[in-house]
Amino acid sequence: MINNNPQDPLAELITTYNELNSSVIEALHEEPSPLEFMRFVARNTPFVIRGGASNWKATQTWSPAYLSEHLGDEPVNVAVTPLGYVLSNADSPTLYEDGTLVFAKPWEESQPFTEFLNYIIQQEKDPSSLQGEVHYAQTQNDNLRDEYASLFNHVQPDISFARIALQQKSPDAINLWIGNSQSTTALHKDNYENIYVQILGKKHFVLLPPHCRPCVNEKLLRPASYKRVVNDDDDPSPLLLSETTGHVLSKLKLELDKIEEASESGHGENSGLVPFATWDPEDDGPSGDYATPYSKLAQPVKVTLEPGDMLYLPAMWYHKVSQSCNPEEGICVAVNYWYDMEFAGPLYPFSAFVRSVYESQQHK
Amino acid sequence: MINNNPQDPLAELITTYNELNSSVIEALHEEPSPLEFMRFVARNTPFVIRGGASNWKATQTWSPAYLSEHLGDEPVNVAVTPLGYVLSNADSPTLYEDGTLVFAKPWEESQPFTEFLNYIIQQEKDPSSLQGEVHYAQTQNDNLRDEYASLFNHVQPDISFARIALQQKSPDAINLWIGNSQSTTALHKDNYENIYVQILGKKHFVLLPPHCRPCVNEKLLRPASYKRVVNDDDDPSPLLLSETTGHVLSKLKLELDKIEEASESGHGENSGLVPFATWDPEDDGPSGDYATPYSKLAQPVKVTLEPGDMLYLPAMWYHKVSQSCNPEEGICVAVNYWYDMEFAGPLYPFSAFVRSVYESQQHK
Ligand SMILES: O=C(O)CCC(=O)C(=O)O
Ligand SMILES: O=C(O)CCC(=O)C(=O)O
Repeated sequence: MINNNPQDPLAELITTYNELNSSVIEALHEEPSPLEFMRFVARNTPFVIRGGASNWKATQTWSPAYLSEHLGDEPVNVAVTPLGYVLSNADSPTLYEDGTLVFAKPWEESQPFTEFLNYIIQQEKDPSSLQGEVHYAQTQNDNLRDEYASLFNHVQPDISFARIALQQKSPDAINLWIGNSQSTTALHKDNYENIYVQILGKKHFVLLPPHCRPCVNEKLLRPASYKRVVNDDDDPSPLLLSETTGHVLSKLKLELDKIEEASESGHGENSGLVPFATWDPEDDGPSGDYATPYSKLAQPVKVTLEPGDMLYLPAMWYHKVSQSCNPEEGICVAVNYWYDMEFAGPLYPFSAFVRSVYESQQHK
Repeated sequence: MINNNPQDPLAELITTYNELNSSVIEALHEEPSPLEFMRFVARNTPFVIRGGASNWKATQTWSPAYLSEHLGDEPVNVAVTPLGYVLSNADSPTLYEDGTLVFAKPWEESQPFTEFLNYIIQQEKDPSSLQGEVHYAQTQNDNLRDEYASLFNHVQPDISFARIALQQKSPDAINLWIGNSQSTTALHKDNYENIYVQILGKKHFVLLPPHCRPCVNEKLLRPASYKRVVNDDDDPSPLLLSETTGHVLSKLKLELDKIEEASESGHGENSGLVPFATWDPEDDGPSGDYATPYSKLAQPVKVTLEPGDMLYLPAMWYHKVSQSCNPEEGICVAVNYWYDMEFAGPLYPFSAFVRSVYESQQHK
């Protein structure tokens, strides 16, 4: 009526946002005040504090030897996934044997800490020397106040500017992440305000704001889980083979999860299917297959964290995370703080609105 | 694809927001800190501070007699519109003689302050005694630091919690509003963070969040202006007549503005037409004609300001404003502070997105 030649509203949203916001992250050199932090929260905009955690005990003392000595053979939970496949990490979209994309969850097992640590260090030095598995300590269940509680007083118990600004007694979860450069976390988003602190090695974040939902090609995927196959030479199901040598790389087998009968015919939230982004903002190649017409409009914010750096990763932002290690260390270690996000106000309903406009467009 | 029976995304947006946000305004009893204020800004959510300005000199000393003495016969700019018509105030959608809705702007004239003041007080006592015009001192051009500068040091030069939180040296505009209960400001929105302070009388605000764009039935209206017709009995154009007595109520005549030739064929922003809300959230009656299918979903926030109360009216919220006077005073006086809003972050692009989704839906 008003505009006879309306633009595509979703394309207009993404480009308007791009015009008004920089895709270069703001870098601070000291902690913001709670008010300064709140201004970023209000804009739902990330920033990095270079060296913000450089004087923490963790940053100053942790090393493979130190951690090994400190934790010894204590059992820790390790996520195990096969090595060397595009899109084949923990909690990520993965090609199943029938050629469909499924949501692959890692095999989880308990390992003595030193064994776990030696594995990832050894792999970092010589990836071909090992059985072709990626090991990542990444339980996002408040593990630093639980499994790794003995390390907890090496970090801040909370991030004071965030605690004060967000009016929360304590973070909802504090998580420790230990892995090597083989571990990548696929693009996803969380309903948390996230303060991410790098301790050893580097983290490479690729960030997209919440309204980039139409770019990420979220699909409803069947959930599947890796299982470790032990001494089962009779098992006829295909194992993962090296693309180059054809050798068995791992005794890990991906199996579809059982979906409750009652919900099998359902849709959306009740179907047991997992909605997950399938586009990889860093891949112009094969997984470019998963680009949508909107993907090319996205202007990702890219930032690499060095040891001691802190990142504010605002609620509902998509993030893909990869890492690289200092060769002398061979491990990457980080700690993050999840604070509850605010569901009142415009952010949450607006993000849901972008999703439903995109989805209702897909039906046409 | 995902949801086979998608809800209307716009309806879903409004109801999701309603579920997560109260339509009862939060009331504080002292000024918030800049951080506390910033939390409301982040949620784009209004609040009121009862008695927040009760110790200002303006609140404590202004009265009709005081203002009259202080300003005397200084000339002030007065907006003049006809009395007694639904939708017939300054800057509001008004029925033109050809039966179409136009955007009516007031006749503006300079009056000696005391004359202006006596007129509105007299009218408040006996509306039928006067020539049927509404007079409102409402120039929104920073008039308290200009026309009324001699009163400026009776109010705070800025609102410190807002100045600090929003990092602005000074408000963009500080406006004085003087009128009586005949003046209503039609539903509209401003790209400003607004702190509104009541000094004399009461203000009744009806507020709608920015995403209620589909409820307000914004239309592109031809601009028109009231002109005062002086001693022109030969003028054949119709004057405004009393609905009950048929008497001439006012020598004000509404004339369509000339629209530049070049833009006459244009659309939207270049057409000279004024986009303006036509739905009145308080009217279930005749102007219920202007309701859209979404209007009934809106849950307006209603708040009445008493003398000394301060309202935070967040950027881009629709507001309709009416007033009632203390009979002994016969005037309503308020001061408001406009601070620049933040265009970075999600609020502005999202609000524009709601508009374009609604408009593209109208084309179908
Ligand atoms: O560090 C990683 O691998 C992922 C981090 C992450 O997804 C998070 O902090 O939410
Ligand atoms: O007080 C009024 O009449 C209207 C106030 C208003 O629209 C504003 O402060 O933006």
